[in-house]
Amino acid sequence: MSVFAPDVERSAVGHAITTKTPLRVSEIALEGGLVGHAVNGTPADSVKLAVLAILRERPDLVVSGINLGPNTATNIIYSGTVSAATEARILGIPSIAISIGAFKEPIWQTAATFSRRLAEQVLARGLPPKVLLNVNVPNLPLAEIKGVRVTRQGDSAYEERFDVRSDPHSLPYYMKAGSYRMSDFDEGTDAFALDQGFVSVTPLCFDLTAYGRLEEFSRWDLS
Amino acid sequence: MSVFAPDVERSAVGHAITTKTPLRVSEIALEGGLVGHAVNGTPADSVKLAVLAILRERPDLVVSGINLGPNTATNIIYSGTVSAATEARILGIPSIAISIGAFKEPIWQTAATFSRRLAEQVLARGLPPKVLLNVNVPNLPLAEIKGVRVTRQGDSAYEERFDVRSDPHSLPYYMKAGSYRMSDFDEGTDAFALDQGFVSVTPLCFDLTAYGRLEEFSRWDLS
Repeated sequence: MSVFAPDVERSAVGHAITTKTPLRVSEIALEGGLVGHAVNGTPADSVKLAVLAILRERPDLVVSGINLGPNTATNIIYSGTVSAATEARILGIPSIAISIGAFKEPIWQTAATFSRRLAEQVLARGLPPKVLLNVNVPNLPLAEIKGVRVTRQGDSAYEERFDVRSDPHSLPYYMKAGSYRMSDFDEGTDAFALDQGFVSVTPLCFDLTAYGRLEEFSRWDLS
Repeated sequence: MSVFAPDVERSAVGHAITTKTPLRVSEIALEGGLVGHAVNGTPADSVKLAVLAILRERPDLVVSGINLGPNTATNIIYSGTVSAATEARILGIPSIAISIGAFKEPIWQTAATFSRRLAEQVLARGLPPKVLLNVNVPNLPLAEIKGVRVTRQGDSAYEERFDVRSDPHSLPYYMKAGSYRMSDFDEGTDAFALDQGFVSVTPLCFDLTAYGRLEEFSRWDLS
């Protein structure tokens, strides 16, 4: 097993990659004799660099996470954790993104247990082309988990705003504010399953084509 | 019309957003008496900030671009231009991302002409929920454009590698290298249409759920 990660927290960095500045890697001793690799880039950079430049063997599986905080619904679009798993899948490697449904006092053991179970399943069965798994685990003791649900990406999103403030030079600046608001209570969604105490497993695809709309647009007068 | 953009080039920044540092906006005089707004953030930040904090009226349409260089196939995943249009659509505003199929000597007039035509169509017809349009225009004089095709996101990607080099302290660093390689020649794809001299219009969706795979995964033994 190899561990690669950004050298600082890179939340909400989405699928950003570094193309114009050098990437560097530092080795860091981890518990249990493992060596971690700290990359001065994004989660997606870390995967690219590991697979294309550092590892001698191609990994059988990339597990991205465990992220602190849920990556459900619209949050998926901004998630560095999900993007690292997407990057692996673009490179043809089966991948899983795992997040825990809380920002503090995480119960890592529960998420770790499901990570391992799911990793074993993916290694045994493989994944369909261009499909990765996005997993969200409730922040509960293992015995309190209600089960596992295969879900779709829900529609809930942060209710966003910016706070306008003044700096010491009386110049305005804008700080991101707002809070997550559950607006999509459909039983089939990732956020709902997580909220109800289920592990949510969502198959994601990085082909973004709105296939159901191709015919509709072909009737537009576009030329 | 209002113009918002990152204050420096932010290529390959994907859907990164700024959540932990202040954003600032500078006004810049543009040709034709327009005022541009330069944001010290990403393309997605620029849209969020414009809509949620700066503009007094909600825009009817967000046009992201014109980007120098194609945003087709796997490139879409890394594109700040597409992500800005996605951000607008997340906020409920119809949006178009427009890119030109070359990195130098751009023929802006051709892309601008199709941008305007498409903007008029979108304003007249609206867009389906959660769907945006990703448009790629060949770098050709208008008279040489073969037509417009509604396409799907292709599978071609950069053939990627990293160059390992040494810095003045003899420490290694990794620079992204590689070149775009056309591997998916399917007639229905964005990259193929662009390559053949057609304007490519791809409806994209930011619900990433692999709907066709939900049933398959529900048969896995996940609990």
